[in-house]
Amino acid sequence: MKLSAKVYVTLKRGVLDPQGQAVSRSLRGLGFDEVGDARIGKFIELELDAPDEAAARKRLGEMCERLLSNTVIEDYRIEVGARA
Amino acid sequence: MKLSAKVYVTLKRGVLDPQGQAVSRSLRGLGFDEVGDARIGKFIELELDAPDEAAARKRLGEMCERLLSNTVIEDYRIEVGARA
Repeated sequence: MKLSAKVYVTLKRGVLDPQGQAVSRSLRGLGFDEVGDARIGKFIELELDAPDEAAARKRLGEMCERLLSNTVIEDYRIEVGARA
Repeated sequence: MKLSAKVYVTLKRGVLDPQGQAVSRSLRGLGFDEVGDARIGKFIELELDAPDEAAARKRLGEMCERLLSNTVIEDYRIEVGARA
């Protein structure tokens, strides 16, 4: 089954995000005074083959644990769907 | 109105993504042979104040054009909702 997955990797709450702070400050510097906190994460789109969505989700969880995220400081969220 | 926005910045189709290629190759190297193409994007969570969601969406479009994305090579997608 040809599937398409989206993986969102975000910093855990409480972990300092200097990149997000820089973006927030830059936006305010450009006149976007309405902006408060900003947090930056990664968004990974993957094509993969799997017997079904549940199997894909399990494998994607392993990929996140082993390579895609640093689980000490990051959370991940997985979405699986049919390939567009 | 206190709102929370999510901005997804992705490379346009046809733009080479060496970071995605490296991730795809690394995953296969770890034994995830079912993985095909990978593409890496940015995921930006912003807190902002706006009169309503339509106004927020307009301002966020300007932020994307001016700072958050490089519109020559990247697309962006905006989601706006109540702050969690």
